[in-house]
Order: sequence, then structure tokens, then C-alpha cells
Amino acid sequence: MSKVYLVRHGQTAWNVGEIFRGRADIPLDETGKQEVHLAGEALKDETLHAIYSSPLSRSIETAENIAKFHDIPVTPFDAIIDISYGEWEGLENQEVKEKHPELHSLWHREPHKIKFPGGESLEEVRIRTMTGLEGLLLQHKDENFVLVAHRVPNKVICCALLGLDNSHFWRIQQDTASTNLFIYRDGQWIIAFLNDTSYLKSLGKPSLSDF
Amino acid sequence: MSKVYLVRHGQTAWNVGEIFRGRADIPLDETGKQEVHLAGEALKDETLHAIYSSPLSRSIETAENIAKFHDIPVTPFDAIIDISYGEWEGLENQEVKEKHPELHSLWHREPHKIKFPGGESLEEVRIRTMTGLEGLLLQHKDENFVLVAHRVPNKVICCALLGLDNSHFWRIQQDTASTNLFIYRDGQWIIAFLNDTSYLKSLGKPSLSDF
Repeated sequence: MSKVYLVRHGQTAWNVGEIFRGRADIPLDETGKQEVHLAGEALKDETLHAIYSSPLSRSIETAENIAKFHDIPVTPFDAIIDISYGEWEGLENQEVKEKHPELHSLWHREPHKIKFPGGESLEEVRIRTMTGLEGLLLQHKDENFVLVAHRVPNKVICCALLGLDNSHFWRIQQDTASTNLFIYRDGQWIIAFLNDTSYLKSLGKPSLSDF
Repeated sequence: MSKVYLVRHGQTAWNVGEIFRGRADIPLDETGKQEVHLAGEALKDETLHAIYSSPLSRSIETAENIAKFHDIPVTPFDAIIDISYGEWEGLENQEVKEKHPELHSLWHREPHKIKFPGGESLEEVRIRTMTGLEGLLLQHKDENFVLVAHRVPNKVICCALLGLDNSHFWRIQQDTASTNLFIYRDGQWIIAFLNDTSYLKSLGKPSLSDF
């Protein structure tokens, strides 16, 4: 049996401002720093054998806040880097909505059908993240590990492990600094919990924003 | 927007003993009583407009522990009663495994294909619970409500709201006294969180049992 803890990085200014992040390396803001400390604390009693993180600093800093409670290094893992939004990166959601209304609407109605201009599709994210995860499973037989990544890779991984196609992207909530637990047992995935943010209560209620 | 909190009843002696419950009206045990108090406390700051419960006492007592923090009565709701296991009710899991190895194996391999002898199928549970839930949604437009039910109805409802068929039954963990939050917005379901048991930490770790 393997336990896979899938964590989303903490809040950044671009989450609050609804600016497409993708490969842009935006650091955690002050709230994000508090969030990831609490996320790390929530996992401190778990038995962990490895911690993998997207190479972007918002994820690495999140992963380090988990690692500080364990004697384990953070391993950067390219397979779980954020989606490439291509030309949308650095643009505000509202701006994209006004300039590219059709593509923006497609993203919200049929997320599985979009390939971001100069960037990736959800299918491409799914193939690289799941290939990466399958490799880790072989490497960590009967061990537990953490993956720290981003909203898009996390939602796509959740869909894949639940048995859903990417059209269900908007159904899966992934708050900043949230944790999911997936258990791999007898060749099957069990969803132990999804989008746990209970340890963030001292910072106020989740906004239910999906950005 | 409606928030639907889906709660599983607290522990009973038949959870610990792995005895098929179904329509047998087994009360909460001492641990179960502690669990449901904590579950109620965890929901005390939520805005709730109604609380529905399976008519079986283990669910009603759970629902009353949520209601005691709000000025709302508990409404018994037949549509979310536990599955009828028919002839299996009152039998130990191990006993069923020995006496009916083929049917027991089918239940674990292809849960969507079994109809319990003298009881229900998952499809029948899905039709009655989802019909019930759809009625409540119409009745509670832009209101939030709680459903307190059982492992099987909860898993089947989770599958339905995620967009999964009943073959995924074993992938969805539902611990005793756990809570799920589903948000109904613009005609679509969003899974805010699944199988939250964070408020039960003082009682020890979840066993990862699925019975």
C-alpha cells in the first residue's frame, strides 16, 4: 500500500489578483506563507518516505514547509510543474475574458477541448503528470510520498485517480495549500479525502474561488 | 447556489464487528456518540436551512448532534435510508465470505452488478437517493442543507455527483461521522471536499476500514 499526499501550493498575489500563473515563477504572499506552515504542521505525524515538488518556487516553498517536520529533502519533479498557459500567462482573468471571449468561454464550458495558445492542453498535463506518478509508484512500493503541485495538475491528477475524464475539471475544488490523500492498494486507487483545508481555519474560510 | 453537506452516521458495534447493517436499526456506540458530537461541532458555524436524515436511529442521533448547534429540526427522509442487504443483514462479513464466496467476491470486484438476495442493488439506491436529492434542491433553491445517511447511500451519491458510475463504489472512502461538501452552482456540482474527518483527530486516526 502507498499513500500519496497531493498538496497545492499556498496563496500568491496572482491567486488574489486572478492572474494566469502557469510557468511564471510567482512567490507565496504573506497569507500563503502562513498557509503552508499550517499544511506542513497538519502532515507532521504522517509517515513519509519522499517529498516531490513542482520546480516552481511557490511549490518548493510549500514542500519545504512539509519537509521541515521530517528528515526528508524536497526533490524537484518536472512532471508536475504547472500547466503552460502560453500567451495567457501574466494576464488577468478579466482581461482574457474581454480579449478572447470565445476561448475563455470554451475553457470554462469544455476545459478538455482547449489548448492554450503557445501552451498546453489538459490532456498533455494528464499524460506527463500520470506518467510521472506511475514512475514514482514503482519506485516507492509500499512507501508514502508527497506531491506538491498546482491547481491544474492537481485537478487533472484527481480526475485521473477518481476515474474521470478531463471534462470534469471544474467539478474538483483545489484550494491553495489544500491536501488530498490517495491510497494505492491492490492495484486500485482509493480516495481517502479530497481538498482538506481544515488546518487553515485560523486564517478564515476558504473563498470557494477557483483560480 | 446551494451547499449540500453529506454526513455519514457515527460508529456502531456493527461497524467494529463488520456485521452487515442495512435496515437493521443499530444504535451508535460510545465512540460513535463522541464522533457525532464532534461532527456537529465542526458544522456549528455553517449557515444551514434544513437537516434531513435517514430514519434509522444511528443517522437520526448523528443529525440531532448537528441540529443541537442550530435552530432547525431533524426531518426523517426515507429516500436516503441505508441499502437493504436483504438476507445478509445481521451476518458477519467473514461468515458471508465463507458461505457465499462468489457473491461476496462479486460485491468487491463488481459492486454495480450485485443485487443482494432479498435486498437492493446500488442502482436502486442511486435512483431513490438522487431522486430525493433532486427534489430537495428544487425545494431549497439557494439554501444549504444537510443529509445524514450511511456508507452505501453516501458513496453512491458521491459517485453520482462526481459523474462516476457505481462501479467506482470502492474508490470512495466514507469514514464514520465524516462530512462531504457538494456545491450546486449554475446547474453544476462542485466537490468542495470529500470525507473530511479532521475534527475526529482527538479520537485517533481513521482506520481506513471500509465497512
